Order: sequence, then structure tokens, then C-alpha cells
Amino acid sequence: PPPVTVPPSPVTPPARVLTPESMNPAIRRVEYAVRGPIVTRALEIEQELKKGLPKPFTEVIKANIGDAHAMGQQPITFLRQVTALCLCPELMKDESIPSDAKERAQRLLSACGGHSVGAYSASPGVQMVRENVARYIERRDGVPATADDIFLSTGASDAIVNILKLLVSGEGSQRTGVLIPIPQYPLYSAALAELEAVQVNYYLAEERCWALDVAELRRALAEGRQRCCPRVLCIINPGNPTGQVQSRECIEDVIKFAYEERLFLMADEVYQDNIYAEGSAFHSFKKVLMEMGPPYSAEVELASFHSISKGFMGECGLRGGYVEVVNMNPEVKAQLAKLVSVRLCPPVLGQLILDTVMDPPKPGEPSYERFQAEKEAVLGALAEKARLTQEIFNQTPGIHCNPVQGAMYSFPRIELPPKALAAAKVLGQAPDMFFCMRLLEETGICVVPGSGFGQKEGTFHFRMTILPPTEKLKILLEKLSTFYTKFVKEFS
Amino acid sequence: PPPVTVPPSPVTPPARVLTPESMNPAIRRVEYAVRGPIVTRALEIEQELKKGLPKPFTEVIKANIGDAHAMGQQPITFLRQVTALCLCPELMKDESIPSDAKERAQRLLSACGGHSVGAYSASPGVQMVRENVARYIERRDGVPATADDIFLSTGASDAIVNILKLLVSGEGSQRTGVLIPIPQYPLYSAALAELEAVQVNYYLAEERCWALDVAELRRALAEGRQRCCPRVLCIINPGNPTGQVQSRECIEDVIKFAYEERLFLMADEVYQDNIYAEGSAFHSFKKVLMEMGPPYSAEVELASFHSISKGFMGECGLRGGYVEVVNMNPEVKAQLAKLVSVRLCPPVLGQLILDTVMDPPKPGEPSYERFQAEKEAVLGALAEKARLTQEIFNQTPGIHCNPVQGAMYSFPRIELPPKALAAAKVLGQAPDMFFCMRLLEETGICVVPGSGFGQKEGTFHFRMTILPPTEKLKILLEKLSTFYTKFVKEFS
Ligand SMILES: Cc1ncc(COP(=O)(O)O)c(C=O)c1O
Ligand SMILES: Cc1ncc(COP(=O)(O)O)c(C=O)c1O
Repeated sequence: PPPVTVPPSPVTPPARVLTPESMNPAIRRVEYAVRGPIVTRALEIEQELKKGLPKPFTEVIKANIGDAHAMGQQPITFLRQVTALCLCPELMKDESIPSDAKERAQRLLSACGGHSVGAYSASPGVQMVRENVARYIERRDGVPATADDIFLSTGASDAIVNILKLLVSGEGSQRTGVLIPIPQYPLYSAALAELEAVQVNYYLAEERCWALDVAELRRALAEGRQRCCPRVLCIINPGNPTGQVQSRECIEDVIKFAYEERLFLMADEVYQDNIYAEGSAFHSFKKVLMEMGPPYSAEVELASFHSISKGFMGECGLRGGYVEVVNMNPEVKAQLAKLVSVRLCPPVLGQLILDTVMDPPKPGEPSYERFQAEKEAVLGALAEKARLTQEIFNQTPGIHCNPVQGAMYSFPRIELPPKALAAAKVLGQAPDMFFCMRLLEETGICVVPGSGFGQKEGTFHFRMTILPPTEKLKILLEKLSTFYTKFVKEFS
Repeated sequence: PPPVTVPPSPVTPPARVLTPESMNPAIRRVEYAVRGPIVTRALEIEQELKKGLPKPFTEVIKANIGDAHAMGQQPITFLRQVTALCLCPELMKDESIPSDAKERAQRLLSACGGHSVGAYSASPGVQMVRENVARYIERRDGVPATADDIFLSTGASDAIVNILKLLVSGEGSQRTGVLIPIPQYPLYSAALAELEAVQVNYYLAEERCWALDVAELRRALAEGRQRCCPRVLCIINPGNPTGQVQSRECIEDVIKFAYEERLFLMADEVYQDNIYAEGSAFHSFKKVLMEMGPPYSAEVELASFHSISKGFMGECGLRGGYVEVVNMNPEVKAQLAKLVSVRLCPPVLGQLILDTVMDPPKPGEPSYERFQAEKEAVLGALAEKARLTQEIFNQTPGIHCNPVQGAMYSFPRIELPPKALAAAKVLGQAPDMFFCMRLLEETGICVVPGSGFGQKEGTFHFRMTILPPTEKLKILLEKLSTFYTKFVKEFS
């Protein structure tokens, strides 16, 4: 018989253990627009500029993320002096640093293990800082707060995800549903995707300055109940990306709704110090809840989040924040304490910055005037830029910008001509992504398409921070408006 | 007809949304012994001491956690000077700080957004730091490394959980199984519980200095395959809690095993600078893998973890670390990049400390001598304490302590008399928990029972760090040995 020829084994690529097909499908479903494809492209363009590729602009301006320092905002001196001393106590002898910063640093170090910021703190945070957070909340709200209810965190992001984690359970139609605003800050949709919780959308009313409407909550809840078990209601106030500040009345209505429908409230209040519009004021959910009295104050469960990344300090890179839990079942609170202990502790310097923010220099203390001046300069400039943004955008036909009452963003609606929609479709892009990409390529301005935050079907937006320095922002707003007009013309 | 009396509605406690029954059952199952009940009790006792309650000791000594600074280890000056300058650039004019620290701070600040540590960094970390990590790995291993494969993290904990997250998929018997050593660092069991992955135990051989044995891996894998789909093999080298350092030969065997059985390797190498025993040397999995050549070097998928919390720096509170991924599918790597972007970025100061550790002062530079002296003092003292621990424990009949070849812990086996087992049973405690609790109450020494790490059925251990200052450690070891002898006598 003829010899059997063995066919050569086919050259198969090695079968990896971890492939796009075999990986965790929940992670694959996660999306996070604030750092999505538009930002990737912006970074590439920066590299191209560095290499000398000709572009119709000389720098990329990243107005995509609420990162004040990256846009040139200066740090608050007192915060930095205290933490630098904590890192390097040898500097206590530096005479340029005021005595109250030194005293604070000494006090904070005495609350750290081995008097070092290099020791792990207790998992819910340095006890002294937790107490200072509780005192701050009491001053803010005029109602009691206790350190036991405060868990410090690695930015607010970390705390938000941990609370969601506790809340997720059930299978199929019993799976936890979470009501989130649309437009939303995409941490929420990303965390829900990762945790395989069910996202239930409620829409903010753009035509009424992005107000939250209880009738819409009711509609969303009814819709959600058809496919899951809605147990959580998330509120972002002041709003990101929408910049609205909720009225006290609205907050009361939301609390009543949560009480009636037995929903756990998550109040993302990281922009509580960023209020600009006349007539707008920040009301914390905790304060309103407590002032409403029983049965609400005793029964509605609430988690409220704060961060050092926003406000007047903008210390994003330090990663600090906290959650205050209200009316949380004590056993569940113990479970939360256990959960956070697995990651050991939040970054200690972020905790210490939080301490200085919660308990800033007081009148008469050496650092008071500089602190106060720096803080007011930042908040004053932000208010001016909020006003400017709305004003300039609304001068351009086709752009509609609600007042930026608070937070750090504008979220203007843009009308896009049908030909632009068709062109986007050809590229398989959302129409506002198409617009933002073109904007980036032609002007170097990086903003995030509304589709990354969610928006009413058929409407288009983008989110732009108000953070660039005033003069630069003005130029930016004008450039953007001009580009929009040109874009509309091109596709008409 | 007589009037109808409406019975009063029963006083029901308000039905909370979030209760122990309704919460995420996966989180409920999480355990984390290093900060468990024994530590809670230690904190209570500290409060009792403060209040003046009489105790047979004057202070609680927490030898439960690998936290060098908390035990009095001094920070490395150069690291702290650089980061303090980054926080507070005004201090550049302080003449007590050497010029190379100032230059490094300048360089690092120029790599931060807006030249501020308060800006969010890129999500996988500051690019310059990632490059320095890659250069460090190249020097360490003599094989190429690229910044693209380096993801900076919030301590190693964060990176470990993220890699596990990617790897978890499937349902029922197809659910991802993860092989972990027993005894283990309980982050692993906690993360697996949270992610609902299946924990598959392989036992280290106590009688051979906690060596890892491929035959045992094979047994564990076969066992795991009966109930899940094992896809991941975790190695901790140097070991925690066990302190062994793996031989190069053993690492080669493990890599071959992972190749044959198609397992993704996770190498926890956070103690790579903590090697004490003569004849022991650290071999990174990456180096061994690359030196083995094809097919291994091209096909075995590996994630290697490092941290600023251990080594000679012990900067736990700063929360810095990294993972290097090797042979990771590029699309999966993009998914990892997306996943970390949701939390925005790791703490920037932890990243900067990592930079100084990866790229320390060189001979001839102003900070070199102090840096080198401080580093050697720490590592020298640790080596001495490792030796001391083993020596003193082994003088006590009934305590068996393997040599502490590396890491920061001893994990002695203790014989417990049957009456002690019976007494523990009455209290519903694990026998070594019973022992550790008694130890804490009577001596103030806080160590973690072996049951928190896992151990062979019927054996009992505790984990104690070698971190207290030498003189204190000596007293501690003697006190503990004496207590053990007394305890055995009491229950005989
Ligand atoms: C509404 C909202 N919540 C939470 C966060 C998270 O902030 P961080 O994790 O930096 O505290 C942000 C950041 O932009 C935000 O806009
Ligand atoms: C083996 C091992 N891996 C990881 C970690 C986590 O360290 P960190 O998150 O502080 O970097 C530890 C901490 O003790 C450890 O012992």
C-alpha cells in the first residue's frame, strides 16, 4: 500500500485562556464615554502634534473631563502645605509654612498608625477624619451626624460602586433594578453593567432646565417593574452632565416617592460646593430628609456621596471622598465595613485632604485669609465661566444651552442636519460622536458626545467642562460655535 | 349592630430595602481575616486601656498586618521629599532638600496634567511612571518590558481584583475556577467570593518549608475540574503568610504545568525585595518564563503584581502598585484599559512613590548615600528579625516554625491539646481563633489565626509579622512562647 502521508497540522494560533470570547461578558458590556474613543483620538492627535504633523490648531484642549487642575486651576495652598508636611515631617522647620498648617499636620499625623501616612489606616478611614466629616455635615445641615455612618473612600467612585455592590441581588425578574437619570454620569451605567444590575432610566426634563419630575420617576418605575425589581434610586445633584440644581421642593417629592415605593436613595452630591446661579442653593438629601421628620426621617435609607475632586479644591488625583449612610440596617453596615476592609484602606493623603476641606482655616488663624481668597477666586471664576458658557452658546442658532446652575459642565443640545445624520450612519457612528470627532480633528477641542451620557431619542448634545481659564474658554466657546455653524452649512 | 372595632395595626418594624436577607449574598459570603474579629477586639481593648480598665499589659501590639510604618519603621527620606515637593512646589526653595529630589519632582510634575498631582492621571497611570516601571523590570529580569503592558493601581489589591474580574465567566460547572495556595493571603478568597468564582485549593507542603509541589497542583486541578472550569493559577512568591521563597526550578515546573493545562498565571510578587534566607533568591515569573523560550514564552499568559506597600519602603497608606501583563490578548488588554478607566485613575502620589522606588537615586547623586543607608538598614533589620523569629519559636516545644525565607511573616504551627479543642468548640470558635483570642486578652499581642488563611485539616497555626522593632519583637516572641506553654499546661 502506498505510504500514508500525514497532513501537516494546521498552524493554529495558540488558544489563549483569556480571549474576548472567554472573558467576563459583564466587563465587555461596560462603557465609559468620558474616557472613550474620543479621548483616545485626542491623545493620538497630541502625539501627532508633538511629531510635527501639520494640524489646523496648535494644541488639544481637553474639555472632556471635570479635572480642574489639568485645566490650570491652582491648588489651595493650605491643603498642600498640610499634606506635604505629613509626607515629610522634616519640613516642619521650614519657616515659610504657617503655624496652623504645622499644627494640623501634627494633629493628623498623631491619628495615623506609627505617625506616618505610610501606614494603612483603618478601613473606613482615619477615625479623626471621619469625626471631622461628621462635624462638617452637622454644620452644613443643622442635624446630627455620626462618624460611625461615614466611610471614607478612594474618590466618590469607589464609594458609589461599593454601595451598589451591596444592593445587587436576585435573578431574572427579581434582579435589582437601579433608577438612574438620563443624561447620567456614566460611572453609573458602567457600574451597573459590571455588577449585572438592571439599569432603569428616568429622563430629566431638558425643557425645564433638566428638572427631575416625580411623574417621570413613576413612569420609569412602572416600566422597570416589568423586567426587574427596582430597589434603588440614584440622584445626581447638582447634575452631571446637566448642571441643574434641585429645588428643596423637588427633593421632598423624591424622598416621598422613595418612601412610598420603598427605594434606597443614592444621592451623588459631589458638586455641592459648585453652585453658581442666582436663586439656586444646595440642599442635601440628608438635611431635607431629617427635616421632613417621621416616618421619612426614620425609614428612608440614604447614601450620600462627596469627593475632594470637585468643589473649589479639585484634588482629583489624590482620590478622596466619603459616603454617609443614613438609616442603614446595622448588620448591613457591618457588611459594608467588612467589604471595604478587603481593599485595606483608601489612600491616606486623600483622607487628609478631605480633613482640611471639611475643617478649613478659621477667621483669625494664620492661613485663613490666603485660604479664603484662593477659594473665592476659584468659585468666582467658575460662576463667571458658567454664565459665559450659556451666553455664548445661546447666541448661535441651532445650539440650545440651559443655564449652568451648578457643577462644572454645560450640556448643550445641538440640531444636526439630516445629511450629517446620514454621514454618521455610513461611519457607524452616533451622530453626536460624528460631530465631536470632526470638532476634534478640525479644532483640537475635545468634548464628549451626549450619547455617552444618554439623551432623549433623536436629540443630540455634547458635554463640555467650564474649567478652562476664562480667556481660553471664551475663545473655545467661540471656536466651537463657529465650527458648529460651518458644520451645519457643510451638511445642508 | 354593634360598632366594628378595628384592631390596631401590629407594630411592624419598618421594612428596610437593604437588609441582611436582601443584600448581595456574594458580599455576605466574603471573609477577610486580617481585619476580622480578632482585630475588632484588639481595637476595643485599646479603648478599654485608654479608659483605664486594668489589664495584664499596657499596650496592644498589632502583629496582625504587614504594615511596617505602623510598627515604627521610618519612611525612606528621598521618597517623601520628592512627593512632598510634588504636593507643594513652593517648597522647592527649601534648602534642606537635595537637588536630585527637586529635579525628580520637577520631572514628575511635568508628566502630570496641569503640572499638578491634583489632576486625574491617565487611567493606566502616568505615562512616565509606566515607562520607568518597564525599565525597572528590564533591569531586574534582563528581558524586554514595555509600558503598554504596565497598569498602575491602587495598591496591588486593586490590580489583583481587576485581573480576576476579567477572568470570571461561565455558569455552573463552566464557572471559572481559580487555584490558590493554602495557606493564602485572604484577599484571594475574598475576591473570589465577591466575584462568585470557584475557589480551588492547592496545599503548600509545610514539611518542606511550604514548597509548592506540581503533583499537588495536579491533584487540585483534577478535583476542581469536577465542579468548575479551572482557568487561573495564583502563586504568591515570596509567600504570605508562609514566608517561603520559590526556587527557579519550581517556577519552571509551574510554568510548564500552566502551559500544559492552559491556565492563566497570576504571580503575586509584592514581596520581591523581601528575601532574607541564605541561598534564597527572587526569580520573577516573567524572567523565568521568557528565559524558558518558546512555546512557553510566547503562549503562557501571566499577570505579575507589585506594590509600594512592602519591600523596604512599606508605603501602604499611599496605595500604589502595578500589574505587568504578559502575552495578554490585545483586545482583552483594551478591555482592561476600559475597566480601569471607570474608576478614573489610581492615586497619583502612590504612582509617584512607585516611580522613585523603580528608579532610585544612583551612585554619585546627592541623595544616594542616605537612600542606600536607609534601605539597607530596613532590609538588614528585617533579615535579623526573620532569623530571630524562627529561632525563638523553635525553642518552644509544641511550636514549629519554618524558616522565614522572605516576606514579612512567620506562620508557626502549634500543637493544641484536646481539652483546648473542646473548649473552643463550646464557644463555637476555631481552635486557633480560641488560642489567639486568649493570647490577645492576656498579653495584648494581636496575631491572626491560621484558620483565616486556610491550613491542612487538623493543623493549627497563627500568622505574626516580623515587623516590630527588634528589641520589642524579641520580648514579643518570648511572651508569646511563654503564653503558649502556659496555655498548653492549662488545657492538659
Ligand atoms: C457626578 C459624579 N459623581 C462621582 C464622580 C467621581 O469622582 P471621584 O471618584 O473623582 O471622587 C464624578 C466625577 O466626575 C462625578 O461627576
Ligand atoms: C501577598 C499580598 N498581595 C497583595 C497585597 C496587597 O497589598 P497592597 O494592596 O497594599 O499593595 C498584600 C498585602 O498585604 C499581600 O500580602
